[in-house]
Amino acid sequence: MGESPASGTDTVAAIGEFGLIRQATAGRPQPSTTLLGPGDDAAVVAAPDGRVVVSTDSLVEGVHFRLDWSTPTHVGRKAVAVNLADIAAMGAVPMSVVVALACPSDTPASVATELLDGVAAEAERAHVGVVGGDLVRADEIVVSVTALGDLGGRAPVTRSGAQPGDVVAVYGRLGWAAAGLAVLGRGFRSPVSVVNAQRCPEPPYAAGPAAASAGATAMIDVSDGLLADLGHIAEASGVGIDVHTDKLTVAERLIDVSTALGADPMHWVLTGGEDHAFAATFPSSAALPEGWSVIGSVGRPDIGVTVDGGPYNRENGWQHWN
Amino acid sequence: MGESPASGTDTVAAIGEFGLIRQATAGRPQPSTTLLGPGDDAAVVAAPDGRVVVSTDSLVEGVHFRLDWSTPTHVGRKAVAVNLADIAAMGAVPMSVVVALACPSDTPASVATELLDGVAAEAERAHVGVVGGDLVRADEIVVSVTALGDLGGRAPVTRSGAQPGDVVAVYGRLGWAAAGLAVLGRGFRSPVSVVNAQRCPEPPYAAGPAAASAGATAMIDVSDGLLADLGHIAEASGVGIDVHTDKLTVAERLIDVSTALGADPMHWVLTGGEDHAFAATFPSSAALPEGWSVIGSVGRPDIGVTVDGGPYNRENGWQHWN
Repeated sequence: MGESPASGTDTVAAIGEFGLIRQATAGRPQPSTTLLGPGDDAAVVAAPDGRVVVSTDSLVEGVHFRLDWSTPTHVGRKAVAVNLADIAAMGAVPMSVVVALACPSDTPASVATELLDGVAAEAERAHVGVVGGDLVRADEIVVSVTALGDLGGRAPVTRSGAQPGDVVAVYGRLGWAAAGLAVLGRGFRSPVSVVNAQRCPEPPYAAGPAAASAGATAMIDVSDGLLADLGHIAEASGVGIDVHTDKLTVAERLIDVSTALGADPMHWVLTGGEDHAFAATFPSSAALPEGWSVIGSVGRPDIGVTVDGGPYNRENGWQHWN
Repeated sequence: MGESPASGTDTVAAIGEFGLIRQATAGRPQPSTTLLGPGDDAAVVAAPDGRVVVSTDSLVEGVHFRLDWSTPTHVGRKAVAVNLADIAAMGAVPMSVVVALACPSDTPASVATELLDGVAAEAERAHVGVVGGDLVRADEIVVSVTALGDLGGRAPVTRSGAQPGDVVAVYGRLGWAAAGLAVLGRGFRSPVSVVNAQRCPEPPYAAGPAAASAGATAMIDVSDGLLADLGHIAEASGVGIDVHTDKLTVAERLIDVSTALGADPMHWVLTGGEDHAFAATFPSSAALPEGWSVIGSVGRPDIGVTVDGGPYNRENGWQHWN
């Protein structure tokens, strides 16, 4: 098993599991929550709250990303971001991630190292430690990340606490990744802002704990699409949710792109996944934290998720298996 | 996306991500450490110690297992066992696992559910909660598990604390999985005891925390082979380790199998991976916990890992990328 540093012609097989993991973790900054970093059988992470929040999500080449559309760095960042968003959607502050990377043995070492650089970059952006990793051979690239977070004394905000009379609010971009996907699907690479939104979300992690502190009754990160994810809250809480489209901002950029492509930007906003904005319900009396905006209301169970009081008939978001 | 229960003809695509995850987790017993189980954006696990131990490891079809050699249940059990062994090798008690399962969309639902049944069975054997899961489409089956554990006030036992003068001790079976692999490789399916040892290890999890309490200075679980894994301790600790073969027990069963196959059973014991026994170093004055047996000594840094005072010249264990 070689120990040499990567060059353009090296493959992951030539560098080997231990060499690549060392490359990916050596010298990376670790936050104070990382008590024992990578390199042993397991890592040790602080859990000052006495509880730890944990979530896992995988990205698969050809299913969740394409390396002709995204750089390996984007893929690594995205794999971390989607997991940290899940942690933040519980009202927790992300602390740590571990990464299991499966890839073909003839994968250029540069692809694996750039992907792991992306993992490290997103972790650093979120002040999160990359505390462990595993590298295995497979026929295609699969990046599985597990994230840990700390509740800081707050109760976890589940999907099941929404009450009739609550308001529905969102924080973050909606429809941008869907617009980027539409652009890429037509063979274009610009506008870069929407294309990059598809390549890698930038979830506003701090919005999750802020919502929890402000009394959010239910929360989710928007991975499958606003209506689909509000549907998860509605089902878990046994409530109905109505979305008010006049409260949803459609960015100029999305309007421009939709005009160029002959698409409906509101459809992207309502059903586009992968932006990892946050959607939450709050008591109507709650003072919403800065940046959250009301876009709907919680009502009777029998209404399901409606848009402006009626059913929304286009497909409600993205599902892996279809 | 269908919501019907699995039948023999269903595929994972027909059942869908949410349906399969529900099947895999609904009604499973959860230990008291599971404060919020699967079904939300993330789970919440107790961390009474104020620290949490975390490790991740993946199994890939065709690399780490073959479904003509192992049942899906074995694979699921093994994916959990190898991770819990890493947690125990730090001196921690395993608490929780999350599972990311990637598989082709035409995988029979029964394969996925049996694999997840295996995950649940090994978790239950170890009193561990399956607190989260992710199911994605891929070209082959990849099972990534992340495990969490609790140190119960003990210091983590790393690979780096071995001291010259320490004794080296092991707990658990060595060479059995290698013998099973040799049997399977010849096209046989028996003896079942060694074949099953290859299909799924049964790590003696409690031996890890017991060793930590007894003052173990370094510890590792034997995944790559005894000499290779002692090499990790030697390197991390800056010591040499000598293994005394007269202290290593070779089970009658291994002798029988080796005779039948014309193999060297001591080579299996010294270099066979995947048994997930534990190897640790202890001060020579320590009272070893029950079941641990001394098999070597820690010496000068410049000797590396030796066997009966000299170099061992056969390949030192199993490496994924070769």
